[in-house]
Amino acid sequence: MIERNPISKAIAIRDKSLAVIEPPLDLDRLPDPLPPNVTQLPYDFLTDEEITITSLDVDELLARLRNKQLSCVQVTKAFLRRAALAQQLVNCVTELLPETALERARYLDSLDQPIGPLHGLPISLKEHHGMRGRLTNCALVACIDNQPPIKDEVSGVNDVLWEAGAVFHARTTQPQSLMHLETSSNIYGVTLNPNNLKLSPGGSSGGESALIRMRGSILGIGGDSGGSIRVPAANTGIYGFKPTSGRVTRRGTASGVPRSSSINGSHGPLSTSRYGLELFMSTYLNSQPWYKDVTLVPLPWREITLQKHLKIAIMWSDGVVNPHPPVQRALRQVATMLQKNKAQFTVVDWEPLEHDRGWELTQSLYYGDGGAGLKKILADGNEEALPLSKWMLESKNVRARSREELNQLTAERDKYWHTYNDHWQATGEKDGHIVDAILCPAGPGAAPAHGHSKYWSYTSQWNLLDYPAAVFPVTVVDQALDQPETDYQPMNSEDKRNHELYDPGTYRDAPVGLQLVTRRYEDEKCLAILAAIERVMGRK
Amino acid sequence: MIERNPISKAIAIRDKSLAVIEPPLDLDRLPDPLPPNVTQLPYDFLTDEEITITSLDVDELLARLRNKQLSCVQVTKAFLRRAALAQQLVNCVTELLPETALERARYLDSLDQPIGPLHGLPISLKEHHGMRGRLTNCALVACIDNQPPIKDEVSGVNDVLWEAGAVFHARTTQPQSLMHLETSSNIYGVTLNPNNLKLSPGGSSGGESALIRMRGSILGIGGDSGGSIRVPAANTGIYGFKPTSGRVTRRGTASGVPRSSSINGSHGPLSTSRYGLELFMSTYLNSQPWYKDVTLVPLPWREITLQKHLKIAIMWSDGVVNPHPPVQRALRQVATMLQKNKAQFTVVDWEPLEHDRGWELTQSLYYGDGGAGLKKILADGNEEALPLSKWMLESKNVRARSREELNQLTAERDKYWHTYNDHWQATGEKDGHIVDAILCPAGPGAAPAHGHSKYWSYTSQWNLLDYPAAVFPVTVVDQALDQPETDYQPMNSEDKRNHELYDPGTYRDAPVGLQLVTRRYEDEKCLAILAAIERVMGRK
Repeated sequence: MIERNPISKAIAIRDKSLAVIEPPLDLDRLPDPLPPNVTQLPYDFLTDEEITITSLDVDELLARLRNKQLSCVQVTKAFLRRAALAQQLVNCVTELLPETALERARYLDSLDQPIGPLHGLPISLKEHHGMRGRLTNCALVACIDNQPPIKDEVSGVNDVLWEAGAVFHARTTQPQSLMHLETSSNIYGVTLNPNNLKLSPGGSSGGESALIRMRGSILGIGGDSGGSIRVPAANTGIYGFKPTSGRVTRRGTASGVPRSSSINGSHGPLSTSRYGLELFMSTYLNSQPWYKDVTLVPLPWREITLQKHLKIAIMWSDGVVNPHPPVQRALRQVATMLQKNKAQFTVVDWEPLEHDRGWELTQSLYYGDGGAGLKKILADGNEEALPLSKWMLESKNVRARSREELNQLTAERDKYWHTYNDHWQATGEKDGHIVDAILCPAGPGAAPAHGHSKYWSYTSQWNLLDYPAAVFPVTVVDQALDQPETDYQPMNSEDKRNHELYDPGTYRDAPVGLQLVTRRYEDEKCLAILAAIERVMGRK
Repeated sequence: MIERNPISKAIAIRDKSLAVIEPPLDLDRLPDPLPPNVTQLPYDFLTDEEITITSLDVDELLARLRNKQLSCVQVTKAFLRRAALAQQLVNCVTELLPETALERARYLDSLDQPIGPLHGLPISLKEHHGMRGRLTNCALVACIDNQPPIKDEVSGVNDVLWEAGAVFHARTTQPQSLMHLETSSNIYGVTLNPNNLKLSPGGSSGGESALIRMRGSILGIGGDSGGSIRVPAANTGIYGFKPTSGRVTRRGTASGVPRSSSINGSHGPLSTSRYGLELFMSTYLNSQPWYKDVTLVPLPWREITLQKHLKIAIMWSDGVVNPHPPVQRALRQVATMLQKNKAQFTVVDWEPLEHDRGWELTQSLYYGDGGAGLKKILADGNEEALPLSKWMLESKNVRARSREELNQLTAERDKYWHTYNDHWQATGEKDGHIVDAILCPAGPGAAPAHGHSKYWSYTSQWNLLDYPAAVFPVTVVDQALDQPETDYQPMNSEDKRNHELYDPGTYRDAPVGLQLVTRRYEDEKCLAILAAIERVMGRK
């Protein structure tokens, strides 16, 4: 039995924030039923000016804000209306922030000079990023009345963005306890994928990815302890970046269930462009946040010059679960482009090193208490565990462990970490050139139908190893090109389960993203190599 | 009952290494009994050339090796003989390395050019730094036959020093399980303080400090999880530096009992000079060790320019245990010199923030298992817990804790860490100048008589907070100036215990060092400010 009262309170906050969006959207005109792909519907509901503003890329929008070609108020209003429409279509926000956003926009417009590099840019935030004066529930009913974990003297990510000129206009949905790679909760229901409503936009930052794919925001901040930025980015066809831990503060962010200290989670950006990722990272890190958060390393965003020649290793499969045909095709497509540019790229195969072991360690370390903390907070909220929570809690790797067992597991994790790093270091033994980056799937397939995101290891592997990783869009599932493999011999039950998920019809219009991984703290290099790869792909 | 056989084996290895030192020392001439202060005895046993060589400071010795004014063999032989004498006087080595050191020296002499910045420099190593082909026991009987935790492909600290031209000539003693601030074990017995044999040279790197004080080495490598570099340095009147964790690898080092993952330990240098500390840090970090150890942060040794004006906070007491009169005098002495240089220094008081809580958290986190691991390894070796091991195990803070209790403790540690850092950050609120460094005691007194090192918090506080800290010699206990305080009102039982330890006679010739602490990762700044302070003290 779910107690409705606290939920009604959260929903009332959301709906009240939507009700004051001006001018109101003529929602009666929405088609019924909605088409599977709703990405084009904004053209029918927004003004030409709103469409133009919300279609600009981050750099161009900022340029027009700086030279006052666009006012902050104009821009904020356009994104608020587009976000409100996105909410109607894909259920992605926990609240909009019209009053404070417009107040902020008016203030910024009153200044003679831009206040900072983000002057006037609307930015959306995953709900668990605490905001002063607003509640933070982490998609847990028991937490609906929680005050944000932020004090006046603590500067989290938000404060840095604020000082740089951001306008916070939307807070976005996340899954129960933040620990699904999809986005549904007993509070807000299910967030949908704009490309195909039957598919998941990913999670846990799935409110962000859905909103950004709808261009109700073009830069948002999420968090990622197992793929929670990268999977949503891949599922919706946008960009996402999980930095190395210790670069972006987690102060001021709630987690609902206590975080595992053994798995390195990071906050980071999702955006419509690679530039959006770079802008967040450089703006944030140039604020020297390590003085305010002692757990951060004092590395500013470093300008780097890539070597002329790059060695890219393609990981075609992790050796545990083979990716679906569209992902294989995306890898082939990019690999072929790189191979054609021999002057700049050497392409080799990446040998995955016991990723099954990696996933086992990761799952075990997430829930050293066997999920007791999660079960308790669900019980406290009188709410049911959703299927993806249940599935995780029932995994063979998740059980309560003693202090000794956890110490042992952590020691094994450390050993695996060193071994993997030695493995990477050894790629330079023959030719003196160590692999610069790994290009790999962002998941075992494109965005799956709701409820099927159960194999995290393509992303969680890099949390376990604390390597930075960027996801970028490559292609879209093609009904003709991406036929199922016939006579497929599954490697194991997990591979069989994944294989059976695939048929092209289910994945109609599903974007396919890929993931680029560099070594620990090589965040700058990761995005610089991504730029080099995208140039080869004909992008700017 | 202690099983003697394995101990005999370790002792035989040590004695065999001493027996081949050429030419042999005429030990029959040693005074009986030995004088309390043995630091001058080498002048009676070594040749003038040996005295000259071993009296040079690190920079001057390296210069003479580089220009071949001295050969590596000449230098190595001199330090081997002085180290062998030191062993006779203060019992500080687990073995000398005459064969391999001289082979290395001959090789280096055969080269036309210096091989690296440490060309020909004899370096001593605390025993737990694994060396290929040699056993590593961590002062635990059960571990006497242990192979070193080092594999061919793993590069620890040793390999970097080796590649830079070091000659390893001595391995040094440490206390049972490495967890005393003194140095005694059932294998090697008690290491003595060269300044006064009745006093402790500190620990756990007390073999290093005793050997270096005897100038049987002028640069050695230790480790510090609670004061194990800094206390030995202070107790013997030499220099020591505990870097921020994550800057110096711990790969290839054994720990006997599994390390606490919650308390940040670091390896670092002890030396006869500040230059020795800088040389180790710059040589090590310029090797880019983070590629070989994924747990390290990619910060090279950074050249920094200090601000013209420095704000130094003096912590006269930690508010829990007041330091003895000689330590108070040393603080006053340096503070006065700084205050006289108003153009360069502002001196303020440091307000310690709940250091009692810090020590409680630290002790609790060292032994989350209540010491079960230590007890087991002692039982495995059929050896008794030494008094300082027993004392730690019987502390009210040390008990077996459940997984939940440990998670709770770690969360409290994190909170304390943030609070302390906010406290430091707030020192700039009034004048815009945040405190640059804290000058504080390195312990509650000068080197105590053996068996009395029970209050770690003056050093362990900075492990808990992972701040870098350097110790430097300031003065020596003065029988006239350092009279006991009369009518002292102890603040608590620990303060009472410490107060009662003091009388000037006991501490005859005991050096007094002080400690300089900077913020996390400000290792370079710590040594740069130390240089500025020492210049004011009239040193180079």
